[in-house]
Amino acid sequence: MRQTPHTRDHYPYTLDIQTRWNDNDVYGHVNNAIIYMWFDSVVNSFLIKNDLLEIGKSKTIGLVVETGCQYFAPLSYPEIICAGLRVEHIGTSSVRYEIAIFSQDLQAASAQGHFVHVYVDANTRKPRPVSKAMKHKLEAIS
Amino acid sequence: MRQTPHTRDHYPYTLDIQTRWNDNDVYGHVNNAIIYMWFDSVVNSFLIKNDLLEIGKSKTIGLVVETGCQYFAPLSYPEIICAGLRVEHIGTSSVRYEIAIFSQDLQAASAQGHFVHVYVDANTRKPRPVSKAMKHKLEAIS
Amino acid sequence: MRQTPHTRDHYPYTLDIQTRWNDNDVYGHVNNAIIYMWFDSVVNSFLIKNDLLEIGKSKTIGLVVETGCQYFAPLSYPEIICAGLRVEHIGTSSVRYEIAIFSQDLQAASAQGHFVHVYVDANTRKPRPVSKAMKHKLEAIS
Amino acid sequence: MRQTPHTRDHYPYTLDIQTRWNDNDVYGHVNNAIIYMWFDSVVNSFLIKNDLLEIGKSKTIGLVVETGCQYFAPLSYPEIICAGLRVEHIGTSSVRYEIAIFSQDLQAASAQGHFVHVYVDANTRKPRPVSKAMKHKLEAIS
Repeated sequence: MRQTPHTRDHYPYTLDIQTRWNDNDVYGHVNNAIIYMWFDSVVNSFLIKNDLLEIGKSKTIGLVVETGCQYFAPLSYPEIICAGLRVEHIGTSSVRYEIAIFSQDLQAASAQGHFVHVYVDANTRKPRPVSKAMKHKLEAIS
Repeated sequence: MRQTPHTRDHYPYTLDIQTRWNDNDVYGHVNNAIIYMWFDSVVNSFLIKNDLLEIGKSKTIGLVVETGCQYFAPLSYPEIICAGLRVEHIGTSSVRYEIAIFSQDLQAASAQGHFVHVYVDANTRKPRPVSKAMKHKLEAIS
Repeated sequence: MRQTPHTRDHYPYTLDIQTRWNDNDVYGHVNNAIIYMWFDSVVNSFLIKNDLLEIGKSKTIGLVVETGCQYFAPLSYPEIICAGLRVEHIGTSSVRYEIAIFSQDLQAASAQGHFVHVYVDANTRKPRPVSKAMKHKLEAIS
Repeated sequence: MRQTPHTRDHYPYTLDIQTRWNDNDVYGHVNNAIIYMWFDSVVNSFLIKNDLLEIGKSKTIGLVVETGCQYFAPLSYPEIICAGLRVEHIGTSSVRYEIAIFSQDLQAASAQGHFVHVYVDANTRKPRPVSKAMKHKLEAIS
């Protein structure tokens, strides 16, 4: 089903990302797969800035079990895009995030989708419940 | 909703892809966004091999309007994975593909999802109807 | 031969780039190949901002014939790095750029290298002489 | 200095790699930075197949300190390219590899360059001498 593009105010956490030459594919616009690299980057940026993830050290890490995206308008290098993040749902050990990508000067999303992390033990890769402290920080952007 | 992994026989067209060092992220497995690069590669490989796309020359090109994926099991460089393709639905000017990624020696998909192309005029980027000839070739893998 | 890392003042043009989750490889640092994506991005950013390149429209484009890089210190997502650019040599139809990547808060380059463009006709891909106007703009950062 | 393209017989170890849609940049050919992802992939493929590297487990890992490449001819998705590898020099704790990329059906390299690994302790990241056993296996492709 076709969604309606969200506006910037739907997303409490944001990360500006400089596009790269290679992001544009042969059709002259940012390739659809690159968008997902930005999804990963904004989610983990939030986790790192909130002391919920320290790469290579955290005992709990997020593994991606589902992603999806709808593309509304083209994006192109060399613009700086803005990735917006909101927590949609907090489960026992999983979190579903809503993410959108905004072109410079536009209020409506050029692409938007979801990203589901299951939090697991970094060694055993078995699911671990989302801690109270983590839940509290996630609720701040829900 | 959690899907059931498909088996290889669900996908009539396949493309073997050598994984790359960079496909693995810091958690030691192929990153979720890389999977979508393979989605693009198997769809366009089918189009090119069936004379439905000639990069830089075709007057009709496919733009991606929606993608999605569920991840069931980790994949890792240096394995050669297999991308499977099936046509799920042919609309007036859009085609919805089902795609799955198979690890070496496994029958069940490690990741599977969908990919929706809208076919447009290469210059104006306005939708064009899927031609009879194209429809015929797409039906062969539906 | 091992070079000495340059400092930021060696590079008259700069571009800040947000690193991405995928830039880090399995060893926890930005992969060596990613650095070259930044090289491409800073060179073309300079060309675009100086009206020397309009993607998809320019009649003259730069093709890469040689690149090289030495890596001095690790870089990691989620930092914002700075790519510095200087023109080292302007040939008849080629330009050799010096590029360095700076980690946040460091004055010495974490990686530095070179990048050689040959400017060619966008259609025939035959070399074209660097125009006087272009030469003038390039000399401003040499 | 401009090199002469090597032929396939110069490289004792090879890895076939399926190109991807995203490898082509806006100019319709494989981007220069992608070549370096293939360099990494062929080197580590050799190490893994010869039991010199087990990702995530080896106590000695290779860090890249220098790379370089000259580009002779364009490569394009959807072709399968061949990456060739030769050991050029074995130092105390470093190894310099020569690598070339061959287009399908061509005997002369489309791109060729070098790649220098320093082998370090996976934890301390301090250089470790190349072992006799490793040296022996590397000499087999020198």
